[in-house]
Amino acid sequence: MQVKNVKAEFSFSADKMRKVNLFETERMFADIYCLDPGQEQKRHSHEGADKIYYVLEGTGRFHIGGVEADLGPNQIVLAPADVEHGVRNETSDRVVLLVFMAPNPNKK
Amino acid sequence: MQVKNVKAEFSFSADKMRKVNLFETERMFADIYCLDPGQEQKRHSHEGADKIYYVLEGTGRFHIGGVEADLGPNQIVLAPADVEHGVRNETSDRVVLLVFMAPNPNKK
Repeated sequence: MQVKNVKAEFSFSADKMRKVNLFETERMFADIYCLDPGQEQKRHSHEGADKIYYVLEGTGRFHIGGVEADLGPNQIVLAPADVEHGVRNETSDRVVLLVFMAPNPNKK
Repeated sequence: MQVKNVKAEFSFSADKMRKVNLFETERMFADIYCLDPGQEQKRHSHEGADKIYYVLEGTGRFHIGGVEADLGPNQIVLAPADVEHGVRNETSDRVVLLVFMAPNPNKK
């Protein structure tokens, strides 16, 4: 059985936001994104692929389709295909996000 | 921005496991599954579609591909396409799961 403890996968990098892959198939992936204070995922978009962010820890400042919001634990947000999105840790605490994406843009 | 508070979406039904949709696109969906004690999602499989379960609350007894495991908070598990899977709440507490699936079998 392909099981992981998400908290045990938390891993940070001094130079940039760290992505840790949990599962990947031909059709989707699940990652965690670990952001130290000041780190970000720059705004970008994916042609024909949707992304979901679920906040595990901390508060991220999200930009999705020109709208900005600070989202914390228990909040989940959809970045639909082709819509510009990004997230930045503007706080002094760590931010960890559970991220799902489909289809898997690495498998095109 | 399409944002939801996952805990605010928890909803139980006396007669069976309740599925609450959070987001749905042509390519994927995100649901929560809310299981009162004794409730279950019977074993089944999806042709060509992967499912991920992330445990938000409680402990579920999962069956995936003939293997059984009790999984609790912070644990995440992949039920790959075409592999039989199901989950049952064998405890006296509620179980809530965050569920992602791609592609979206409702959009075939």
